[in-house]
Amino acid sequence: MKKFSKLEIDTLIELLDFSKIEGALVPVIAQDYKTGEVLMLAFANEEAVRQTLETGIACYYSRSRKKLWKKGEESGHVQEVQHLFVDCYKDTLLLKVKQNVAACHTGYYSCFHREYEGGALKIRGEKIFNPDEVYTA
Amino acid sequence: MKKFSKLEIDTLIELLDFSKIEGALVPVIAQDYKTGEVLMLAFANEEAVRQTLETGIACYYSRSRKKLWKKGEESGHVQEVQHLFVDCYKDTLLLKVKQNVAACHTGYYSCFHREYEGGALKIRGEKIFNPDEVYTA
Repeated sequence: MKKFSKLEIDTLIELLDFSKIEGALVPVIAQDYKTGEVLMLAFANEEAVRQTLETGIACYYSRSRKKLWKKGEESGHVQEVQHLFVDCYKDTLLLKVKQNVAACHTGYYSCFHREYEGGALKIRGEKIFNPDEVYTA
Repeated sequence: MKKFSKLEIDTLIELLDFSKIEGALVPVIAQDYKTGEVLMLAFANEEAVRQTLETGIACYYSRSRKKLWKKGEESGHVQEVQHLFVDCYKDTLLLKVKQNVAACHTGYYSCFHREYEGGALKIRGEKIFNPDEVYTA
């Protein structure tokens, strides 16, 4: 798990461009650090980026709930940051993470577990957990 | 290269949720279909999604230029779509592509060629082309 110092965090925040997405957000891609599988895309505001770097655990901003979203807080399916990449425009982050259990709330490892083919969404990959048993709140 | 029929395209458009990003857009992640390397993140409106599926070549929407962005039109560095994945909320696309030459306008294979480490952006990967020689317009 990778954590950053206060100075490193301040430096990154200064460097990032939050102006491109309404609400001062940057898109964040989470990718399995070993297999390269893309797990999900979410958004982060400044505070979510700060928390991610401070704790080493991915934190996003939920646009629907309008608040910080500590991924895995309820399920325990946290993402431990191994590497952090920044794109050429400094407006998008790529987190290479160690995913605990699975990323998707539907029970699949990746949120991108469906391929569009033959006019329909075809499931790729195995279901790892039963959401009804995990999200009981 | 993967192309889709008019009916398949209409079906996908109907299914996608363009309402989450201002300007009726969906984020699109492009990933190398063989190595799994994440190449870039961009946005697409309905027309860009249609063109991508119709031609099999990735097309985005440029928010800065406010128009369709046929990736590689000037440089020839097109992305041939091999697989198209949709996320659990149907508001984000993942294209697995065959990238010609390189994805990044700076000359690197991926737009995410810099890792944030020790308070600075460290270059990872080799420079593949010289932008001054490619973008002469």
